[in-house]
Amino acid sequence: MTKVFSFDHPIILESGAVLPGYHLTYSTHGQLNRDGSNVVWVFHALTANSEPYEWWPGLVGEGKLFDPFNYFIVCVNMPGSCYGSIGPLDKDPLLREPYYHNFPFFTIRDMIRAYRPLKEYLGIKKIAIGIGGSMGGQQLLEWAIEEPNLFQYIVPICTNAQHSPWGIAFNTAQRMAIEADPSWDERHERAGMAGMRAARATALLSYRHYDTYLKMQPRSTGFLAETDSGLAATSEGAASYQRYQGEKLARRFSPFSYYKLSQSMDSHDVSRGRGNLTKALTLVQARTLVIGIESDMLFPLQEQQLLASLIPGAFLRSITSLYGHDGFLLEYKQIEALVRDFLAHAEAGDLGNSNYQ
Amino acid sequence: MTKVFSFDHPIILESGAVLPGYHLTYSTHGQLNRDGSNVVWVFHALTANSEPYEWWPGLVGEGKLFDPFNYFIVCVNMPGSCYGSIGPLDKDPLLREPYYHNFPFFTIRDMIRAYRPLKEYLGIKKIAIGIGGSMGGQQLLEWAIEEPNLFQYIVPICTNAQHSPWGIAFNTAQRMAIEADPSWDERHERAGMAGMRAARATALLSYRHYDTYLKMQPRSTGFLAETDSGLAATSEGAASYQRYQGEKLARRFSPFSYYKLSQSMDSHDVSRGRGNLTKALTLVQARTLVIGIESDMLFPLQEQQLLASLIPGAFLRSITSLYGHDGFLLEYKQIEALVRDFLAHAEAGDLGNSNYQ
Repeated sequence: MTKVFSFDHPIILESGAVLPGYHLTYSTHGQLNRDGSNVVWVFHALTANSEPYEWWPGLVGEGKLFDPFNYFIVCVNMPGSCYGSIGPLDKDPLLREPYYHNFPFFTIRDMIRAYRPLKEYLGIKKIAIGIGGSMGGQQLLEWAIEEPNLFQYIVPICTNAQHSPWGIAFNTAQRMAIEADPSWDERHERAGMAGMRAARATALLSYRHYDTYLKMQPRSTGFLAETDSGLAATSEGAASYQRYQGEKLARRFSPFSYYKLSQSMDSHDVSRGRGNLTKALTLVQARTLVIGIESDMLFPLQEQQLLASLIPGAFLRSITSLYGHDGFLLEYKQIEALVRDFLAHAEAGDLGNSNYQ
Repeated sequence: MTKVFSFDHPIILESGAVLPGYHLTYSTHGQLNRDGSNVVWVFHALTANSEPYEWWPGLVGEGKLFDPFNYFIVCVNMPGSCYGSIGPLDKDPLLREPYYHNFPFFTIRDMIRAYRPLKEYLGIKKIAIGIGGSMGGQQLLEWAIEEPNLFQYIVPICTNAQHSPWGIAFNTAQRMAIEADPSWDERHERAGMAGMRAARATALLSYRHYDTYLKMQPRSTGFLAETDSGLAATSEGAASYQRYQGEKLARRFSPFSYYKLSQSMDSHDVSRGRGNLTKALTLVQARTLVIGIESDMLFPLQEQQLLASLIPGAFLRSITSLYGHDGFLLEYKQIEALVRDFLAHAEAGDLGNSNYQ
């Protein structure tokens, strides 16, 4: 069930920008129990939305690991997105026209600060389990540091403590593709659309890897196909797949949101203002299960190893996937098994002894 | 010394396109010896030119592995490039204006077929050593299959038998970035320039890898920098590096050449018309040293392993590099050592015995 929460007080962002207020679109499933001990907060990634039933159906839903029968499940659309929370297509109340390029980007930290009034509104004092992958995991980590007592368990997946130079370089190449589309300078909803198609094609590469393409988009006759008039360049296989994915995103997402959210991701650095990574991650009090994917090229396993080594008492598990980073959305059976095992040992009180290390 | 070779007979490309003639810009260094046994043919990659002294100074030049005192060194600018051989900025003789978008892309096979008249013009009957990395290695392999008796030794580096779906996907994302720049539809030399900047930023990612960026472009204060008015997004480090590299290429290369040559690379498939990869590579008679780089993300080691397993009697050596695929241009000391060792054993007649396996 998707709802909108409005907050009518000014919010000061880390950049210094001030918004007179904001709204968040969120979903809840299930009921908060009497002692408030059954909250699951799910964080979505870059182009997803506040409805985990749609984008994480293997993990969230009736009969699934996170079943609304047992849990009160909350998911908020991140600010800057085009799926209902405040974003670049909303009207700037002062100018009475959409923000577009002038929308102030939210850092990951700004995002979770924006969630706090909603959390209070929902009557949530404690979150039993926080879980999220990629940019969702970045938000989860920020919040678990900002409010160390809030989460009982956290499961950051395929994520990092600070966005890497490699990740920033990938995002920059994508922003450059959007900027290369001169319509990007215009003020309307379709501005930068061709650029975003190209950006998505680059992003997709970082979500997968060499073997994914080899297996999913094999060459057949190759880049040249025989036609009546000889051999001609074709756009089959990998080439058409890239174009198809760009087109698919163009039908459902805003270039403005894409651009601003990639800046949000680049801003991620839990050490900012907290000394260094060690000092920041030491603040986490939640029992933590870090999950990584061995073939993840964008958030490689070394990033999850770092998280697990610096978060007190954290555990690390890795899974295999043909899909690289995208595996965090697709390998739900492996993720479910790891989370169930972790929670079972936690409830049995034997995390960290020989039964679970 | 750079020269131009003109060929005034029609050439039929694999695509079926016909050119009334073509020209090639090439360099030679050193002198062809009496028995014609000292030819080294160097093949350049995507955005390089016919002067290996410029782009491979560690390997080619006086006192280097390929010394003009000992060898007759030839390097040809590939057709489609903007460095002197026939390309999109040349005039279509029928229309009397530049080809631009209508330039027919050369497959890798078309390229080496175009080199044959030049080879004859230079009086070359036999090439002692053929060497090239990346797209240069693709040309070398095609030629060593097309004319099995031509090469005595070949050293394909960081290259493959057919361009991979992964490589095609990377190139497609880059062509999409160029297409997203509406000036790309125009007919002048700067058309698509902003798109090419973005394309180069994506390409650069494939030439390097996570650790390259981590070491070369570390985060300092991160994506947010403290300014007098608070924290603001910065473009330091990895972000500015991407933009700088895009700008750098824009000052020296043509978007038309970039687009067409990326199609040339995608066309690469030695099995086309030859049954399959095994049948094609079995045709190679040159003694072959395949070199790969362990951290090469674009042409991963498995591609060189495949080459070495299918080329009769081929040897495989791998090197380590912080620079990934770019290592083929930078790790000249390691490459030199491997090639010297290979040639020394070849001359001693003990390739394949226990001294060299």
